[in-house]
Formats: sequence, structure tokens, C-alpha cells
Amino acid sequence: MPALEIIAVGTELLLGQLVDTNTPFIAQRLADTGIDVYAAHTVGDNRARIATAISAAPDRSDGVITCGGLGPTVDDVTRDGVCDALDTECERDEVTIARMEGFFASIGRPMRENNRKQADVPRGSTVLENSRGTAPGFIATRRDGKFVACLPGVPHEMETMLAEQLLPRLRERLKTDERIVTRVLHVTGLGESEIDHRIDDVFRAGENPKIAVLAHRGVCDVKIMAKARSDARAAEMIDPVERALRERLRGHVFGSDGTTLPQAIVELLRARGWRLAAAESCTGGRIAAAITSVPGASKVFAGGVVAYEDEAKTVLLDVAAGVIRQHGAVSEETALSMALGALRRFRADVALSTTGIAGPDGGTEEKPVGLVWLAAVWPGSKRSVSTNFPGDRDDVQTRATQATLSLLWGILMSEEATIHQSRT
Amino acid sequence: MPALEIIAVGTELLLGQLVDTNTPFIAQRLADTGIDVYAAHTVGDNRARIATAISAAPDRSDGVITCGGLGPTVDDVTRDGVCDALDTECERDEVTIARMEGFFASIGRPMRENNRKQADVPRGSTVLENSRGTAPGFIATRRDGKFVACLPGVPHEMETMLAEQLLPRLRERLKTDERIVTRVLHVTGLGESEIDHRIDDVFRAGENPKIAVLAHRGVCDVKIMAKARSDARAAEMIDPVERALRERLRGHVFGSDGTTLPQAIVELLRARGWRLAAAESCTGGRIAAAITSVPGASKVFAGGVVAYEDEAKTVLLDVAAGVIRQHGAVSEETALSMALGALRRFRADVALSTTGIAGPDGGTEEKPVGLVWLAAVWPGSKRSVSTNFPGDRDDVQTRATQATLSLLWGILMSEEATIHQSRT
Repeated sequence: MPALEIIAVGTELLLGQLVDTNTPFIAQRLADTGIDVYAAHTVGDNRARIATAISAAPDRSDGVITCGGLGPTVDDVTRDGVCDALDTECERDEVTIARMEGFFASIGRPMRENNRKQADVPRGSTVLENSRGTAPGFIATRRDGKFVACLPGVPHEMETMLAEQLLPRLRERLKTDERIVTRVLHVTGLGESEIDHRIDDVFRAGENPKIAVLAHRGVCDVKIMAKARSDARAAEMIDPVERALRERLRGHVFGSDGTTLPQAIVELLRARGWRLAAAESCTGGRIAAAITSVPGASKVFAGGVVAYEDEAKTVLLDVAAGVIRQHGAVSEETALSMALGALRRFRADVALSTTGIAGPDGGTEEKPVGLVWLAAVWPGSKRSVSTNFPGDRDDVQTRATQATLSLLWGILMSEEATIHQSRT
Repeated sequence: MPALEIIAVGTELLLGQLVDTNTPFIAQRLADTGIDVYAAHTVGDNRARIATAISAAPDRSDGVITCGGLGPTVDDVTRDGVCDALDTECERDEVTIARMEGFFASIGRPMRENNRKQADVPRGSTVLENSRGTAPGFIATRRDGKFVACLPGVPHEMETMLAEQLLPRLRERLKTDERIVTRVLHVTGLGESEIDHRIDDVFRAGENPKIAVLAHRGVCDVKIMAKARSDARAAEMIDPVERALRERLRGHVFGSDGTTLPQAIVELLRARGWRLAAAESCTGGRIAAAITSVPGASKVFAGGVVAYEDEAKTVLLDVAAGVIRQHGAVSEETALSMALGALRRFRADVALSTTGIAGPDGGTEEKPVGLVWLAAVWPGSKRSVSTNFPGDRDDVQTRATQATLSLLWGILMSEEATIHQSRT
């Protein structure tokens, strides 16, 4: 298996002011592509040290990927370090200049001389276009045929360039004939240890495919990784394992290979022609933001109300003042009434609501920080759940959002099943 | 100033399955102590590669700190790598064995042979006691007097050992009397290259304090880093540079040292006793979510409406159907009318609105993807802006949210200025 080294460039990384998430991201994508990472390094924005690190790495491995230091400021010196390491000079890439002029014209800002510097690449490099920013990347080749590929340090720019520009070229260049194919099942409504317990026998069945469980807040990924010489062979190895896992996690797998819970929900809503509304208190707009992050959400999302104050719950969601007075703003009754109000106001087919105490203040002994009531209503039916979420304000808001979306997904799936049954 | 290198040990780091937060933590503490980090590295659980990395590092610097690979399992081989690098052997530390026996007795678990291995340290090392786990760390010395310090990889064990055991010894050993103090200014409404242009002369004025500019989407950080013998001396060096930077970035610095734009806004709203409302279309709840992520937002945030459909704009925000018909949903008129509707419905003191085309679909020649109208209204005044944001759906939504918050911040600041003037 070919092996590369990764060099992250940035003085702020060596000062500990920024956590380097680029290196693990690149490492993960390389692993998926069947490329080992021999070692990783971090150097400051220092031309000589960058050059030294770049010179040394390909002696141990097949090449090196750097990220960071391609920006327009005087402390961005990666391209100079590469030139020193390869004993060459930079030349201005005119195609990039033209693209940058278009970009600056479109945002109505002047293009300065320091921006032009970003179009300088080592002589003879292959330019890697930056579809999400100005600084292009490049692949430069040493005299011995080993390469130095340079990516920008801004994560979303780097991620897109890696996927679209660099990995296809590495696959060809390194002729990786063994690849690691990964399929990921996304699971909601089950904790990591519960998943672990349910899939234990599948887990122990073999080393290839290998299984790994990764927990985020409120969602778990189950990864199936197969090493094989072709995608087709890998798929043959993965398929039976996937079937076994889906069997054991039935009713909880909402998607695979990068599908998000909001995407799965938008798809299910679209399939049945339903429109969604949201009435949020403690989640403060996160449910609406999650749904509207999905392209095409406008077809299934009617809208939402962030009713942060009690008065807003009354005025915009028709929650009776007496309900709040009697049961409190954080109660099952208020949650259901909020959802019903949103359902009617937006003339939606299903509506969600949240009301809770995100903290750090506002908790009492009876209703502590982390207590959240969620509800969903749709014509003829309703659901409500209360949970005490652990963690800080961000944890509570994130987990409450996930739990509410998870509730909706379960409803859409179970109803689907009913319709499906009645048809067959 | 003395300089060290850091080596993180762990194959899972090179597979990208774990983000290394230990290195930035150690780097930050070293900076505070007046020790530079020359470079950082990551190697897998491989004895030979660990030894090679440890041998090379002290040639460039005063010593090396490793973390990880001190556990009881067969793939924990850091101590062996150190022995190879220093051409010595391990010996069992009996004090540690006694401590471990006490620890296992206290938790009622048997102590196994692989646990004993954790008490092995290179001959002649100084043992660093682990007050939060079993594996001790150690400082071993090379023949030339340079050192290798090894810490465990479990973050809370590492952090305590670093603070209590290692740093006091490094201070003495390296006779550090210098420290690096950092102040960060957070800037909105100016791009990285525009900032660079404005502060160029301050930037070039000297190496200490050093200045660095870091861009996120819609926000930039300007860092001022001073090396000095005391915090007081560092502050004296930073203060005039900060004043010069604030002067050149006037009207764009919304906070310092970690303040977020929503935090700055919540603080300004609180200071003048104003309540905010939001009417969001293309930002889909992100403005409300950003504001409500701030603890205490409930005191200044009345609520919001996510009016994704035209009908919602009419029903919940009182936008006249004729306005949408005549000017379109994405127009200055609709944006202003949405904001006004939110102001009235929530009886707020200031209201924001967004309406635009986040994409990927829905763009036309006249109104392309990325076009967003933002507005703010408050009693007696209003502002509206249109921008063409570059990038994908997420970019457009993120940048539109930042721009709207930036608009509000500017309003709150200018009004503050007015009030301030009228008082003096």
C-alpha cells in the first residue's frame, strides 16, 4: 500500500491556538482511498522549516501533502518553501488570475496585489482549482518523481479540493490497487453501548470487513470497512455484513454514506407530499436551520416560529396563557399546544415543537437544566416525550434538536409502513 | 527562548479516527511558560518509527515531549522506542509498583502482569507520578544533556501530569523567564486581504509583538503575540499595537479574546435594554440559532419567524401579498416588510430579516443563486443591503447570517455612539 506524509503549516497550530482538524480529515480520506499515512507533522509559517520538512518527508514515503499557508498575507509562505525544497521557482498561473478576477468582481471587492500572489505556483505544477475560495492548490513533482501536493488550510476549501481535485489524481498516480471501501450506516435513537451490545456477534465475526462504531451527539455511525482489489469485490464482502447489521438495528438506521437525518426527513416528507412546520423554544431555531440546510427543503418546509418568550408562544402560536400559567412553559401541555399552533398557522401536515431549559441558568429542583419537552402533531395523532439531556447549553440544544428530528423520522417511517401495508 | 518538539503517538491518529487535542494543549501551556514549539509530529504505534522520531527531534531543539503509548497493551511501545533512541534499557520502578498495587486494591480489581509493564521506565529516568491513572510518565536524559519527556495519551491524565509534574521541572531545567502573551481582535465586515492592506505598516513594524490574521467565513481574527518576561511587560508591548490596529480597523472590531459576534450583540442589546426579533427566509433559522446559543439570550431575544414560504411571510409577518407579487420574495421591499412585521408581532425594539436564494436551485439571470437581501428596522429608522454571496448553499446561508449579524452590530454600535455623544 502506498504511504504519504502530511504536513500542516501554521504558527497558530504550534502555539496551540487552533486544533488541527485538517490532518485527521485528510488521513481518513487517504485511508478510504487505500493510502497509508506514514507520519504527520506540524511546522510554523517559516519558509526554511517548511522547506526542510518537505525535503525530508518523501525520502520515507511516496509523497507529501501540505495544508495551510497558501493565503494572500506575508506570513503565507508554503509555496516558497516548496520551491526551496524542490530547487525551483514560482510562476504566475494566468488561468487562476482570470478566475480570481471574476470572483472579486462578483463580490464587488477590489482585487489587491497580495491576492495575485495566490496564483503563484512552483514551475511545472499541476494547478488544483479552488471552487470555494481564491487560493488554488497545486501538485509539484520532485526530480525523483515523488510529489508535493499543497492544499489550502481553510477546512471547507481544503475538503472540496481534496475530494474533487487531489484524490482522483492520487488514485491514478499511486495506482492503488487495494482500496479500503467504507460503508457507513447512520443510526438514531440508540446509544453507542446499546448498538455495541446488539451487533456484538457481527462485530466479532471477522477482521475484513472490519466494523467500527462512532458516536456523535445524538447520532451514531456504524462503519463497515473492507479491503479489496476492486469496488465490486468490496461490495460483495460488505453486503452480507450490512444486511446483518440492519437486521439488528431495525427501525434505527436512517441512512447510509453521509446521509444526514434532516436529508432523510426531507426525502420522506417529499415522498408523501407533506409540509413541515416547527415551533421552537429551547432549540432556538436549530430545527428550522437543520431542515433548511438541505437543498430542496423549500418544497417540504412551510416555516417555523422561534417562540423564545412566553408572549410569543401566545401571540404567534396561540398557546393559551392559562396553559403556560397552570403547567409552566416547560411542560407537555405547552409543547403540544405549541406544535398544534404551528400546524394550524402554517397549514402544515406535521409540526414539531421543543420547550426546555438549555441552561446555564433557569433550572429548578423540579425542572432542572437539561429538561426538554418535545412534541409532534399531525392530523389525527400526536406524540410527546420529555428527556433530561446532559451537558452544557450547546449539548442540550444539539441533543434536543437531534431527538426531535429523530421523533419525526420515526413517525414518518411508521406511517410509511402503515400506508405500505394497506396497499399490499 | 528554549524550543521543544512534540510527538503524538497513536496509529488511530494517522487513520484520522481521532482528532489530536493533546498537542495543542501542550503547545499552549508551553507558550504560556515561555517555551517555543519548534515542530510537532504524529507517529503510529511502531517502535522503530517512534525511536527515529525521538532521535531526530532533539538535534533541532532542546528536547522532546511525547504523549501516548504508555498504556498496558501490546501496542503501547513508546517506552521501548525511547530506550532504543537513547540506547538504554527499561527498569521497573518499584515506587510506582507499590502505588499501582494500592490503586488496584482500592478499586477492587486484580493487577495484571501487563499493568506492571507500565512501571517500566528507561534506566535513570525521573518518574512523573500519574495522579489520575496508572501509567506514570518520565523524563529521560540523552548523553548530550537533552531530554525526552513522556506523558500518557489520556487527556485528563496528561493535562494534570503536565501541569503538576512536568512544567515545574521544565521551568527549572530550561531556566525560562520569558512567556508569550496573545491578544486577539475579532473583526467583521472586512475581508482578510482588506485587513492586511489596512494594517500592513503595523504588521511590518516589528517581530515582537508579532501579528497574524486568520480568516473564517465572514469573520477575521487579528492576533497580537508578545514575548516578554512578565504578563505586565507583555501588556505594555501589546497595548500600543492594539490601539494602532483598532484605529485602522475602526468600526469593525466587535470583540477580543474569544468573544463571538452573537455574544457581542447580546451584550449590546442588554446594555441598552433592547429586545430583538428575527424574520428569516433564506437563513432558515440560523440567525435565531446563533443568538440563542448565547447564555442569557432569553433576556434580549423575543423570538423569530422562519417564513420559508411566501404564504408564511404574509400570514405570520403581515407582508402584503401585493409586495411579493410586484417585487418578488427576494427584494428590498419584501425584506423591509418582513423585518417590520417581526418588529410589530414580537413588539421588539429592533428586528432583522433575510430573504434570498441559497441554491442550488431557484436562481435566475436577474436574481442568481447567492443573492440575498438583508434588512434591519428599529423605531424611526431602517437599513437594507443586498449582496451576492459566493459558494454553495451552506456558504450562502452562513455568510448571509454573518452579514446580518454584522449589520445589527454596526447599528447597535453607531446608535451607542450617538447616545454617547448626546450625553457628553
